[in-house]
Amino acid sequence: MTDSPSFAFAARGSASDIEQGLAFQPKFDADGLIAAIVTDAGTGQVLMFAWMNAEALRLSLSTGIAHFWSRSRGRLWQKGEESGNTLAIREARVDCDQDAIWLRVEVGGAGAACHTGARSCFYRTLELGPDGPALARADV
Amino acid sequence: MTDSPSFAFAARGSASDIEQGLAFQPKFDADGLIAAIVTDAGTGQVLMFAWMNAEALRLSLSTGIAHFWSRSRGRLWQKGEESGNTLAIREARVDCDQDAIWLRVEVGGAGAACHTGARSCFYRTLELGPDGPALARADV
Repeated sequence: MTDSPSFAFAARGSASDIEQGLAFQPKFDADGLIAAIVTDAGTGQVLMFAWMNAEALRLSLSTGIAHFWSRSRGRLWQKGEESGNTLAIREARVDCDQDAIWLRVEVGGAGAACHTGARSCFYRTLELGPDGPALARADV
Repeated sequence: MTDSPSFAFAARGSASDIEQGLAFQPKFDADGLIAAIVTDAGTGQVLMFAWMNAEALRLSLSTGIAHFWSRSRGRLWQKGEESGNTLAIREARVDCDQDAIWLRVEVGGAGAACHTGARSCFYRTLELGPDGPALARADV
């Protein structure tokens, strides 16, 4: 485990500061988490959706390797720590109200961002069929 | 407001069903919401991140136009209902554990997915500078 970097995140400012300013004022939810969208820096495909707590966000920014908070396991988690499929961050962005992060990454190892072994977690399409919503396998 | 479609979503099955099956078994959180990532069907750029309740998801699937639940306003919301910047869904996907939706869309109207008038809500990059995290304007 990488030592925790020590910088803090700024408190939330006015709506104008948050939307138009250049100070990073992330909004963590009631559980201390912020949403993180991960896309492939090459193809643009959405690879996964996960959550970061402040520590995961600090480690992601300081190491350039994506870290998350696992809600199911209740612990900090470096993506790929076991599989080798680490996510090298090529660009990070934040949205207008600073409550979501977008990471453009290169996937290491076998190139599988999903724990199922798929390249992306979004390997099924969703459509409304005659019998209601239905999934189909998609290329990823 | 479109009349509410009447179909229901399936109950959650086994982990294997959820990950490998073709039955849609969405996981709504404690607030009854599921995360929705919206990307531009043409460019692949992430446009916005929002939440759907069951009703918003039903309407999105049945009309092909993205609907969300506004947590700040506490109401159902058709994106672009006032601005005209509606989101026509070209493809919907669901992730491995079926707790996030990915919509590939075409933006109508002026083409601005963000309420600030920007094409994407993610109009700022985030980097760790010498004084801590800092934002910079990005092309969107």
